[in-house]
Amino acid sequence: MQQSETVEITGHLIDTGILSRVLDDVREYGGDWVIDRFDVGHEAADLSSARITISAADEEALQRLLMRLQSRGVNQVDPGEAETSVCEMDGVFPDRFYSTTNLDTRVRWQGRWVSVQNPEMDCGLIVDDSSDPPRIYTLPMADVKAGMLVVCGASGLRVDAPVLTKAEGSFGFMESDVSSEKPQAVLVRQVADGIREAKANGQKVLWVGGPGVVHTGAAPAMVALVRAGFVDVLFAGNALATHDIESALFGTSLGVDLAQGRGVEHGHEHHIRALNTIRKAGSIRAAVDQGVLTSGIMHALVTGDKEYVLVGSVRDDGPLPDVYTDVIEGQRAMRAKLPGVGFCLMVATMLHSVATGNILPASIPLVCVDINPATVTKLADRGSSQARGIVTDVGLFLEQLAGELVEGYTTKRS
Amino acid sequence: MQQSETVEITGHLIDTGILSRVLDDVREYGGDWVIDRFDVGHEAADLSSARITISAADEEALQRLLMRLQSRGVNQVDPGEAETSVCEMDGVFPDRFYSTTNLDTRVRWQGRWVSVQNPEMDCGLIVDDSSDPPRIYTLPMADVKAGMLVVCGASGLRVDAPVLTKAEGSFGFMESDVSSEKPQAVLVRQVADGIREAKANGQKVLWVGGPGVVHTGAAPAMVALVRAGFVDVLFAGNALATHDIESALFGTSLGVDLAQGRGVEHGHEHHIRALNTIRKAGSIRAAVDQGVLTSGIMHALVTGDKEYVLVGSVRDDGPLPDVYTDVIEGQRAMRAKLPGVGFCLMVATMLHSVATGNILPASIPLVCVDINPATVTKLADRGSSQARGIVTDVGLFLEQLAGELVEGYTTKRS
Amino acid sequence: MQQSETVEITGHLIDTGILSRVLDDVREYGGDWVIDRFDVGHEAADLSSARITISAADEEALQRLLMRLQSRGVNQVDPGEAETSVCEMDGVFPDRFYSTTNLDTRVRWQGRWVSVQNPEMDCGLIVDDSSDPPRIYTLPMADVKAGMLVVCGASGLRVDAPVLTKAEGSFGFMESDVSSEKPQAVLVRQVADGIREAKANGQKVLWVGGPGVVHTGAAPAMVALVRAGFVDVLFAGNALATHDIESALFGTSLGVDLAQGRGVEHGHEHHIRALNTIRKAGSIRAAVDQGVLTSGIMHALVTGDKEYVLVGSVRDDGPLPDVYTDVIEGQRAMRAKLPGVGFCLMVATMLHSVATGNILPASIPLVCVDINPATVTKLADRGSSQARGIVTDVGLFLEQLAGELVEGYTTKRS
Amino acid sequence: MQQSETVEITGHLIDTGILSRVLDDVREYGGDWVIDRFDVGHEAADLSSARITISAADEEALQRLLMRLQSRGVNQVDPGEAETSVCEMDGVFPDRFYSTTNLDTRVRWQGRWVSVQNPEMDCGLIVDDSSDPPRIYTLPMADVKAGMLVVCGASGLRVDAPVLTKAEGSFGFMESDVSSEKPQAVLVRQVADGIREAKANGQKVLWVGGPGVVHTGAAPAMVALVRAGFVDVLFAGNALATHDIESALFGTSLGVDLAQGRGVEHGHEHHIRALNTIRKAGSIRAAVDQGVLTSGIMHALVTGDKEYVLVGSVRDDGPLPDVYTDVIEGQRAMRAKLPGVGFCLMVATMLHSVATGNILPASIPLVCVDINPATVTKLADRGSSQARGIVTDVGLFLEQLAGELVEGYTTKRS
Repeated sequence: MQQSETVEITGHLIDTGILSRVLDDVREYGGDWVIDRFDVGHEAADLSSARITISAADEEALQRLLMRLQSRGVNQVDPGEAETSVCEMDGVFPDRFYSTTNLDTRVRWQGRWVSVQNPEMDCGLIVDDSSDPPRIYTLPMADVKAGMLVVCGASGLRVDAPVLTKAEGSFGFMESDVSSEKPQAVLVRQVADGIREAKANGQKVLWVGGPGVVHTGAAPAMVALVRAGFVDVLFAGNALATHDIESALFGTSLGVDLAQGRGVEHGHEHHIRALNTIRKAGSIRAAVDQGVLTSGIMHALVTGDKEYVLVGSVRDDGPLPDVYTDVIEGQRAMRAKLPGVGFCLMVATMLHSVATGNILPASIPLVCVDINPATVTKLADRGSSQARGIVTDVGLFLEQLAGELVEGYTTKRS
Repeated sequence: MQQSETVEITGHLIDTGILSRVLDDVREYGGDWVIDRFDVGHEAADLSSARITISAADEEALQRLLMRLQSRGVNQVDPGEAETSVCEMDGVFPDRFYSTTNLDTRVRWQGRWVSVQNPEMDCGLIVDDSSDPPRIYTLPMADVKAGMLVVCGASGLRVDAPVLTKAEGSFGFMESDVSSEKPQAVLVRQVADGIREAKANGQKVLWVGGPGVVHTGAAPAMVALVRAGFVDVLFAGNALATHDIESALFGTSLGVDLAQGRGVEHGHEHHIRALNTIRKAGSIRAAVDQGVLTSGIMHALVTGDKEYVLVGSVRDDGPLPDVYTDVIEGQRAMRAKLPGVGFCLMVATMLHSVATGNILPASIPLVCVDINPATVTKLADRGSSQARGIVTDVGLFLEQLAGELVEGYTTKRS
Repeated sequence: MQQSETVEITGHLIDTGILSRVLDDVREYGGDWVIDRFDVGHEAADLSSARITISAADEEALQRLLMRLQSRGVNQVDPGEAETSVCEMDGVFPDRFYSTTNLDTRVRWQGRWVSVQNPEMDCGLIVDDSSDPPRIYTLPMADVKAGMLVVCGASGLRVDAPVLTKAEGSFGFMESDVSSEKPQAVLVRQVADGIREAKANGQKVLWVGGPGVVHTGAAPAMVALVRAGFVDVLFAGNALATHDIESALFGTSLGVDLAQGRGVEHGHEHHIRALNTIRKAGSIRAAVDQGVLTSGIMHALVTGDKEYVLVGSVRDDGPLPDVYTDVIEGQRAMRAKLPGVGFCLMVATMLHSVATGNILPASIPLVCVDINPATVTKLADRGSSQARGIVTDVGLFLEQLAGELVEGYTTKRS
Repeated sequence: MQQSETVEITGHLIDTGILSRVLDDVREYGGDWVIDRFDVGHEAADLSSARITISAADEEALQRLLMRLQSRGVNQVDPGEAETSVCEMDGVFPDRFYSTTNLDTRVRWQGRWVSVQNPEMDCGLIVDDSSDPPRIYTLPMADVKAGMLVVCGASGLRVDAPVLTKAEGSFGFMESDVSSEKPQAVLVRQVADGIREAKANGQKVLWVGGPGVVHTGAAPAMVALVRAGFVDVLFAGNALATHDIESALFGTSLGVDLAQGRGVEHGHEHHIRALNTIRKAGSIRAAVDQGVLTSGIMHALVTGDKEYVLVGSVRDDGPLPDVYTDVIEGQRAMRAKLPGVGFCLMVATMLHSVATGNILPASIPLVCVDINPATVTKLADRGSSQARGIVTDVGLFLEQLAGELVEGYTTKRS
């Protein structure tokens, strides 16, 4: 039997296109709608608000549609109280569990609104009522334990979608369109401004990087940025660290000069020996302490007491002893570094960018730089709607970024 | 002090360009060469052979250069006996360890030549002399144990590079150049022939797939190929399996019809519920047995008693209970399925293709199909020189491949 | 001084996102708006309409903004009468000329509404009042002559934007998003249906093709489609025709067998000789008549009495005698073939696809097939909003399209 | 009847892979070979030389194969005298005409060797024996006239392929492999060095550019380079010039600020008005003289008395009055600017890059910069073997290039 519920949404509904996407969702889920009221913002700066009655074939379909719509900031007019079920199996949510967005979320629990801790998409909401006020937090599926209280259905929830206008915010001027046809020098400055702003607020700057940082010759620029304090945390895989270390250990000793612009074939032999060297030392830090590793990005992070989380993948050689080989443990280690992050820059990696996008709250500004437009598109498709993409050359981008941020940085002639 | 060694190589040295690459290696490693003798094949079908004296700045540099050259099939004229060192730490090779290629390799050990078992690149060679004849096998760095005997240096080794001509072999007619400008219908047939040939020889066909198989609508074609016996093993990640299962569980129930060509947004909600459903069942097989999962690629593999290895990555949600979350364990599980494989087809995945290329002997024919030329290039760059690339649409490719291989297969009109 | 004008728009304003784009335009042109009335469609199928007062810094800015908005189907509530100016120089419009869209347009002229003939974007509107009723038609800048009456400003104009819903129309089910992750076999069928529908309506099917059609081995499929009557007109450049003819003349005679999947290097020598051969014959048709050219796409077009327009580019060798070397004359020749076209398929060419998109009315369904997503994106960016893109392999696509449309077509084994 | 001829080649035959490509050609043309003598360079710096007997099915096939091989620098041991035929029709070469390469070429004519003037690929060789010594020059097919003497067959010809080593020459250190994984900042410097070297030699620097130069915000950098004297000639299409002029005329007047990083939609309206404005002025120079055009790249070229050739394409609007609408005339205009060019930089355009590659002698260093790897690949495939590719962001590349070359250049903050 057809079920319906009345929802409301407020914001720059028309000029941001958000209402269009909401109605798409309804159509896609096989539902229907009636717009009950539409208060249009008369002038450009005004907010609009809409009240819409949503209907679906049955209660379950309706609940799922409502959960979906909340990811757009569409909330029930009368949300009621949150429902919960007790988790029966470790690692498995109850059937009707509420799947989270990465937006700020509140839950109506026992008569009051409780803010959700650490917003993250695709998680469940766990209610810990042992404390007062009760604590409600996101938890990924793999970490849920039998006996936990899990929010189910769409009732009692309120998602606070950011009131965006296209012209607002530090990164509001970066269009979401992915394109290589942008005035790139200007974009570099905007990223520099975003990083400075985070630092000025006492927040951490999170970098996510792939081996392209090393291959494009940007390691010296990144080292300068680490030393100048603009890299607080690095998320990467085995590849960035190993290529960086390989370059530090063998870059010149074998007559191959990256600085001369001669390409280095993906020689497995240096690569595998670099891995063995660090494994023998015990860790990257140990290799630095023992005087084995004396330059490069990882060296700069270690000597500058910066944090890094390296998470492995199935194509890794070695890996380095610092690498999490269990990807779920790796995700936990990444999550643990998020508190305090105020800006995230992703450079030349699709795998770790998507992984970071998965766990990052939507409130953290996020810029993704890659020569491959698909990387940026992928990120936005996966729900990191705050992501701003720059399709450009990573080597020149970091070179210019160091020039903007680091006093006295110039490309040194060899 | 300058050290030198005389090496030799035989094959279609000139027309395959192999000699050019050998001399590149010498230059890249800072060495030098003198060509002592060059017996050129006078006619097109003749083999050429060269004897070259290689020199380097010191003994260590020379040994490393010699090891490098062996990956091209360049062997020492007087290889001597293999040297070994005892491994002193778990997971760390002795300093001068010989880093393997994926080519057929023999080791001169106590006066006789011993063939290396399971050739794999970037490994060490372990000598087990407890048996007679002694057993010599490849082992990845992570799996070496203290006390094992490891081959060091380049002495006593002989690598048998395949004598390729450009016109020979099942896949000799596929040029190694990566390009989307090839007569694609012909390439489909050549892959079909390669698969049939492996099956006729009683060998297994290994598939490596990414979620693009599902997104391009090729799941029905792949199901038909599984059922007809042309898929013996599948290597994939959490994504292919989850998207396939999501499509099987929710493909039509929500009014979204993949068969109508309407795209499905990367809706996290279906995705995460599909994962929860299978986790609740306990495994993919359990979900099939319980009647929860009744169609799709994974269903076809389970009901057809085919093998699969799913290895996770840091961007995974869930994951499915069948997924190896530890990537090193995942690599071991993949290795365990290689014996008996006679053909490998990689479709729409860079991560798992490279991972499989890393562990596959060069003697197994390998075709990589992707709409993105970079995937194929990457594979060849990493050392899978036998890889043949087809830059095409995965959906249409599998559709046509099913048409070639499966009697009576036609695209069903909905 | 701030000037304003009231405009209105009707349609599926919200769910198609059109209103969002309209307000973007206003912002981009530095204008402002007040929404006077917004009658929202209450149910999903209802149309919405809005009345908006637009303002700009001065009359000229306002007029330009109004002209811009008309390209979205936004018309003045009180359009008044069209203004005209007399053209003073050949090839130059009056300053305030109205720049057209490719949408159906009417002009208020001497008290009545006159429909514009042959809608085309980026043209001027010429009023020929020598006849009764007066004739108003689009004319490109290069073709205007001194003395012609040209419509200026935005008054007296009404643009009828199509009332699109996302689920409607022959190609409504193809999402406008460009992606290679679509069920490709289904898309092939939708194109086949579109072509059949045009033929059933007695309309012509226009193809626009690049040399990739030949390189991907799709020439036999295209020949079959020509013979079966599904190609009425071909727009192409020197390259498609020359590669096709080169393949017909030299494809097998030199032992290079495209049918065996061996790539042909871009050998200038065959290419240039093929050109010389046709130049000697006098034209492609003459070469067919003389028995010089006996197979291939151009041969099929000639013998089937189909039409083609070949327009040259600066990178051409030769060119073929049939090629328009003056691009403006080439555009005129292309325009002359448009009457009666009911479907347009663009395959593997960015240059000629954009050129055709420039002159095609928005009312003609348009599908663009390319392995390169940028081609399709470019087309949509340039204003061909009706374009639907399929990112896939051209070779396999045409193979399957021939299989769908041509009775008994099968890929012939060599 | 099988025909054969003995040829020879000297150079770094093995390490450059050239011999491999020569034998590929023989195989591809269905011929056969016997290597009669192979004098291998014993040390790395030595040249090798080979004498090879080539055979083919008949005299015509042999001649065509020999002509093909000459494009690799393979010459007949006994070249004999050149043969000529009289051209019988305007615009058509005699059947057996020799198709040129872009390499330095000499012709044996009446007992002496004559150097070919203006080497260009895909042309015929015209013998003008009215002077003494006789003049022999390349001529494109379209320009040949009845009565001219045209060299036919492969006899009497000697092509001097450059003796390249991989490590030599201004651009020898740039590998020919196309890849975005290169240390980009170093490549910028190498291009700067190449440009400085040409200027120091009193040679002209030729630029070939696409509209991406404007879209990526690189116009100010390019203006600085023009003013500093590093741009002597520009080859482009209607698009670069129109986008540049559009930006100069409307860039800020409408509130759209390219300097703020806000994208400009491909608004046809500004575009078409910019075209009309220049057409009204009569030419770009006239618009500068009249004070209509006061900034931008075209303005800098005009005021700096630099040369430019704009050649149109079928997708052009307008076009600008300076644009050659006849592409063959455009090619002639481009050819006329080549004398004195010592360096060529191609930026962000496939069409005009290929067109320029077609007419440029191989002796002129050529660097192609594009974010799209396909552009560079295409260029090399077409025979511009001297082309060095840089896959990078055009905006940042030109920004850095201006920083390298122009004293005091810094990106100005808006």
